[in-house]
Amino acid sequence: MIEVEVKVKADHAAVKKIVLEKGAVFSGVEEQADVYFNSPSRDFSKTDEALRVRLVNGAGEITYKGPKLDKVSKTRTEYNCPADAENIISILLALGFFKSGAVAKRREIYKLDDFLIGFDTVKDLGEYMEVETDVSDGSSPEEIKGATDKIFRFLKSLGIEKDASIKQSYLE
Amino acid sequence: MIEVEVKVKADHAAVKKIVLEKGAVFSGVEEQADVYFNSPSRDFSKTDEALRVRLVNGAGEITYKGPKLDKVSKTRTEYNCPADAENIISILLALGFFKSGAVAKRREIYKLDDFLIGFDTVKDLGEYMEVETDVSDGSSPEEIKGATDKIFRFLKSLGIEKDASIKQSYLE
Repeated sequence: MIEVEVKVKADHAAVKKIVLEKGAVFSGVEEQADVYFNSPSRDFSKTDEALRVRLVNGAGEITYKGPKLDKVSKTRTEYNCPADAENIISILLALGFFKSGAVAKRREIYKLDDFLIGFDTVKDLGEYMEVETDVSDGSSPEEIKGATDKIFRFLKSLGIEKDASIKQSYLE
Repeated sequence: MIEVEVKVKADHAAVKKIVLEKGAVFSGVEEQADVYFNSPSRDFSKTDEALRVRLVNGAGEITYKGPKLDKVSKTRTEYNCPADAENIISILLALGFFKSGAVAKRREIYKLDDFLIGFDTVKDLGEYMEVETDVSDGSSPEEIKGATDKIFRFLKSLGIEKDASIKQSYLE
């Protein structure tokens, strides 16, 4: 799966009002505690990859994110798999991976058309918004660009310009 | 967890009869399809580690096995975690791990006292038996040796001598 995703700084109260007026439907709240790992064989901070074990409301999952595929969004290959956090962390540490950071956040999720909208309150960083849509693994660059443009048009309708897009992860 | 395990070649029909007379209880049959992976950062065939994704009756799990801890049994640290096979394999491949082999077998499992007894019919290799007991991670070498000796006494009662112990994996 390829995750097409744009992240921006956002004042939740103001933006949420507009998103709700557009018909967004509340989908849930997640307390996310993330631990990031780096590899013994290559430096993910240089290769722009990410390996994460996330506890979502107490349930574990492991996620790999490949290098970002374009210059404006956070679009990248992503593989995700539910897994017991303690056991999968034991396996990663045994394989030589090492902890490179941690991020804790509260994500309030809304759905609107093909978009997942996450209102993130990140510990020590503040309020952000992520807008995500998924395209299949075999998508062409044009299809990915189409999905990205669609997100930017949506953001513009919220009064948020393209150059507000933040490519760095919360970890960075 | 530390898995204390001894594997021997065994004629199932003959050995199963004795094990059942001793009161072993049938616990299930597993069709196991294993894919082994090697690491981009160190050669598991040299470090005596193993990383395996197993499909057991269709359900996936990932297992890491550390180097063997003694010279006669297959005792080693083991971390195991249920996980969707396709997704976890995608993650391993993305992280640079590569497939190093595959083993398919049918395991008939019996329980007797603290022992798990597996009658393995391994594709292309034939009939084997594994006897396993688990001790906790913090166990002393004496405790591990005690558990190993217990398995060997049990095997002797089946007419199987200590020097029949096979340390190699089916993959090897």
